Amino acid sequence: MKEGDKFTQTFLVSNKVYEGFIDLFKDQNPLHTQEQYSIVKGFEGRVIHGNILNGFLSYFIGECLPQKNVIIHTQEIEFKKPVYLNDDLVLTAEITRIFESVKAIEFKYKFINSASNVVAKGNFQIGILK
Amino acid sequence: MKEGDKFTQTFLVSNKVYEGFIDLFKDQNPLHTQEQYSIVKGFEGRVIHGNILNGFLSYFIGECLPQKNVIIHTQEIEFKKPVYLNDDLVLTAEITRIFESVKAIEFKYKFINSASNVVAKGNFQIGILK
Repeated sequence: MKEGDKFTQTFLVSNKVYEGFIDLFKDQNPLHTQEQYSIVKGFEGRVIHGNILNGFLSYFIGECLPQKNVIIHTQEIEFKKPVYLNDDLVLTAEITRIFESVKAIEFKYKFINSASNVVAKGNFQIGILK
Repeated sequence: MKEGDKFTQTFLVSNKVYEGFIDLFKDQNPLHTQEQYSIVKGFEGRVIHGNILNGFLSYFIGECLPQKNVIIHTQEIEFKKPVYLNDDLVLTAEITRIFESVKAIEFKYKFINSASNVVAKGNFQIGILK
């Protein structure tokens, strides 16, 4: 892996992942579970948990990079637009910096929906395990 | 909610949440799934997915605060020590800043294990929905 390398992965916000996330973590905040509440608050419908995107990042980092011997040091995410059920998201990630001495790699990333809106963006740093 | 307010919540890294997270997000990186690999890499056993802690934060923000009309703007997490299966974690969060004009609240937080080690820490910002 080297600076400027780019990676892409698509994710579907399926009913399975939405319901599975609620089953696992018990976050039933009305914004995520009550259609009418979310509409009154100015959204198109139930807003999907932002931390489902962090689950997608887990898969991306753990399974989609050229090396499997990685560990996450830090993660940052900024939620820009709401994500809804059945949204198709494209994650693009780019290596912004390599710290050779400490075997760490920094990425920036964004999730884009099918209307070409950036719904979330941020950066993360991983370490390479010897 | 006001500056300086502190909140605490405990979380068990159960086998149910570990296996459920893998079932949901498909991150089967060897660090999370192969005991012997993790030991060779210098850990005590399989290291639990850091993003399980982000799932715990989802529950904390969505269900444990005094107000339910919240939405997450940003989240940052720094992983300091490995988390293992059956770890009992105590999350403490403190309000560091309130932005009255834009109805936003900033928190810092840490997760501490039963050996009193900070395993992860960071901050997040939420918005208050009108």
